[in-house]
Amino acid sequence: MRRTNIQLDKNNNLRHFLSVEGLNRQILTDILDTAESFSSIGSQQVKKVPLLRGKTIANLFFEASTRTRTTFELAAKRLSADVLNISISTSATVKGESLLDMLRNLESMHCDMFVVRHGESGAAHFIATHVAPHVSVINAGDGCHAHPTQAMLDMFTIRQHKGGFADLRVAIVGDIKHSRVARSQIHALTTLGVTEVRVIAPKTLVPREVQSLGVHVFHDMEQGLRDVDVVIMLRLQNERMKGAYLPSAHEYYQLYGLTTEKLGYAKPDAIVMHPGPINRGVEIDSLVADGPQSVILDQVTNGIAVRMAVMSMTLGRSATQGSVKREATKAGPKAGKEAQ
Amino acid sequence: MRRTNIQLDKNNNLRHFLSVEGLNRQILTDILDTAESFSSIGSQQVKKVPLLRGKTIANLFFEASTRTRTTFELAAKRLSADVLNISISTSATVKGESLLDMLRNLESMHCDMFVVRHGESGAAHFIATHVAPHVSVINAGDGCHAHPTQAMLDMFTIRQHKGGFADLRVAIVGDIKHSRVARSQIHALTTLGVTEVRVIAPKTLVPREVQSLGVHVFHDMEQGLRDVDVVIMLRLQNERMKGAYLPSAHEYYQLYGLTTEKLGYAKPDAIVMHPGPINRGVEIDSLVADGPQSVILDQVTNGIAVRMAVMSMTLGRSATQGSVKREATKAGPKAGKEAQ
Amino acid sequence: MRRTNIQLDKNNNLRHFLSVEGLNRQILTDILDTAESFSSIGSQQVKKVPLLRGKTIANLFFEASTRTRTTFELAAKRLSADVLNISISTSATVKGESLLDMLRNLESMHCDMFVVRHGESGAAHFIATHVAPHVSVINAGDGCHAHPTQAMLDMFTIRQHKGGFADLRVAIVGDIKHSRVARSQIHALTTLGVTEVRVIAPKTLVPREVQSLGVHVFHDMEQGLRDVDVVIMLRLQNERMKGAYLPSAHEYYQLYGLTTEKLGYAKPDAIVMHPGPINRGVEIDSLVADGPQSVILDQVTNGIAVRMAVMSMTLGRSATQGSVKREATKAGPKAGKEAQ
Repeated sequence: MRRTNIQLDKNNNLRHFLSVEGLNRQILTDILDTAESFSSIGSQQVKKVPLLRGKTIANLFFEASTRTRTTFELAAKRLSADVLNISISTSATVKGESLLDMLRNLESMHCDMFVVRHGESGAAHFIATHVAPHVSVINAGDGCHAHPTQAMLDMFTIRQHKGGFADLRVAIVGDIKHSRVARSQIHALTTLGVTEVRVIAPKTLVPREVQSLGVHVFHDMEQGLRDVDVVIMLRLQNERMKGAYLPSAHEYYQLYGLTTEKLGYAKPDAIVMHPGPINRGVEIDSLVADGPQSVILDQVTNGIAVRMAVMSMTLGRSATQGSVKREATKAGPKAGKEAQ
Repeated sequence: MRRTNIQLDKNNNLRHFLSVEGLNRQILTDILDTAESFSSIGSQQVKKVPLLRGKTIANLFFEASTRTRTTFELAAKRLSADVLNISISTSATVKGESLLDMLRNLESMHCDMFVVRHGESGAAHFIATHVAPHVSVINAGDGCHAHPTQAMLDMFTIRQHKGGFADLRVAIVGDIKHSRVARSQIHALTTLGVTEVRVIAPKTLVPREVQSLGVHVFHDMEQGLRDVDVVIMLRLQNERMKGAYLPSAHEYYQLYGLTTEKLGYAKPDAIVMHPGPINRGVEIDSLVADGPQSVILDQVTNGIAVRMAVMSMTLGRSATQGSVKREATKAGPKAGKEAQ
Repeated sequence: MRRTNIQLDKNNNLRHFLSVEGLNRQILTDILDTAESFSSIGSQQVKKVPLLRGKTIANLFFEASTRTRTTFELAAKRLSADVLNISISTSATVKGESLLDMLRNLESMHCDMFVVRHGESGAAHFIATHVAPHVSVINAGDGCHAHPTQAMLDMFTIRQHKGGFADLRVAIVGDIKHSRVARSQIHALTTLGVTEVRVIAPKTLVPREVQSLGVHVFHDMEQGLRDVDVVIMLRLQNERMKGAYLPSAHEYYQLYGLTTEKLGYAKPDAIVMHPGPINRGVEIDSLVADGPQSVILDQVTNGIAVRMAVMSMTLGRSATQGSVKREATKAGPKAGKEAQ
């Protein structure tokens, strides 16, 4: 309940973006629509709009991730914000006083946004409950809990290729248990109203509570992929698996690795997604990853637009969110003109 | 004498900012006034003025300090300068040829300013004596010698809360001996004309020459804090104390840690300052640090404005310094307009 | 043949800049002329032109080099591009799938240019053969193969001081065998039509194939420097010499270190160049490095202009290259005006 409300301000506009859970279909659709207005910017001559000019965005990465940091940095720069990259040693525990003092300091320097990546579940939420009223927090991945911008770029990509969410069957394949991405995806797909969400994984990698989320569990690819419109592969992250959940990479690939043959069980026009970076020959075969049904690189492209959307919506709260969207559309060409 | 002059150009405008020592009351007041004109920028919609657009500022950090680097980087970006962060391994000795060659190279790339942090006292001064005429040097902390922007943001905060410097009694508490901050503060307070500067510390942490600076030395908090308007706590930096100057952290806290009780010795409206990051329960109690008399976070906020002032004054020397101040005031709203 | 063509698009405009080899005199002269139009920007009030505003340039450094990265970062910022610094651990092998996946990802984020530094010869070329049509690649040094922007800034500096290339005798002194710089310089000097290129080095440091490049080989400084107009010293890089090519640093200095006495063998108005950073007392004496014939710091200054030229030419291909040059000249003062 509290988790639901903390993400919205009193006008029900997005203030923080911590998890898909707790946001309704209208807000999620707003994010997708705003992202759509930004998606043309990437192919313009001048890939920049002045929407967040003079705003200061601090990337607080308690867990190293060049890849994720890069996408947020690019999104911020294309919105003309100033970016501070702050790497924090993992010794600074999330609930220690020193973290709060650091937040107070950055707020006093008039930072407007913290993009938070942390190894502990709940870290971004903890930070959001402690920031000053003028600061927004974006969760860039916290432990096994959530990675909501990843989930939203996946939703954007699905809508782009399938036109909408109704009548879709979506299968998420892999290590559901340790995946913050899967958790966020399930919430997003359910909220946006797909017909069916399936997870396909060995028993050891399915969390007990998953069925309460309205998900159908399969342990076999042939059954799980039948009649599916969207196949979302997860990355096999050995480092996140403490203990022996898996027999061997080779056996995993035999059973769950997405090959052309297994993809044949899905609908002929099913799309294949993966949050990246892909492990070729581990969870996905190169023929599939690079094949005609793969939309993996579209996901990367859409990731910038979705992050721009979330950043501009949370920081543009003083204006109405509809106007942020209009400005984005307007600002693109104008910015292009400015540079000539 | 030489040290006095090197900071000023032939028109007595600020060229480098190396130490408070050697600058007269007029210059210090100019810095505070210029900073005041920048202090509203932090709360504007667009926290940016184009004063140093197209200038190149190199952060030369021979000693790591994310915190200090961040404040200088923010100040530079809010002045629209381009910032280069250059971390230099400590193996490059300050007076070696390789350092001078590096300076020559950066000058040849048309860098306009070096912000220098170095573990050795005198490093920034050494660099300033060797740079090309078009380059300004800002001392961001050199050994135990000086940290002048920290001292000036403290002065700014005192003036903000007390209206001026006359009739003030200021006590600096802690490791005076190893503190570059204390040294700079004493010079600034004396130059700006406070009634009395006191230092309060155990005998082992008071440098012998301190009384020649016109300072009263106390070894007891009750006596030292009596009738004081401003209490400046210093950070206890174990890493800077080679040898056994202290009995134990616990005993230190008993004698010199600022608690509500000890703060009661000072005037009822005394303000409490600390350069940060604070060691809660070591030199200061959380009740005081977060209490109504604490202005510690104001110091952080003011640090950006003071650094913007010093950067724009040293780089804006071609214009008169008064006009830099006027431009700052003017530029704020204008910049805001530009972004709409 | 393929190597020649990959650098040019179908209109014979520069698309990538991988090596001087394979580019004709017209293109090299275009680079120098474009750089000349940028060379005044460094001394302007506002050192910035909006030519690449909204472009995204990724520095992909597989081999650490603060110095080279800094010059490319500065050049990009002065062209108003957004810069991403991406350090890549050397474990990512150049021809592995993971590298290609990384490139695909950065392309999908709409990066426009990769500046590539790599320890393996051919790495930049390999990357250029695999990028998307909208991406340009600049070689910032690959193994022992090439360092073409360094060679072009050397050519710029020679033309600046000697007016042109005809009738010039140029000697390159030092470790020719392991120097990517020397290889690029020889190609550039030959293409631009100097009278004679000489290399001076101990036998162990001359590669066997060098004479096929039309170069005269000397093992003695007195003979090699006679009547020379330009002396290019190379840095002695111990780390690049696997095995015992050298007797001792002391003996090397005796035989090949450039002293005032040895410089006396060259023409009285000969200029002395060095790619930096110089090893004083190893390959060059301080009296020479800092003397009146040294143009070493001019090289550093020109490096920014040459990199701006190459970046704007490769990214400005949609416009004619002549117009990039005109815009550069025009944009300078305009940008200056903007900031007032």
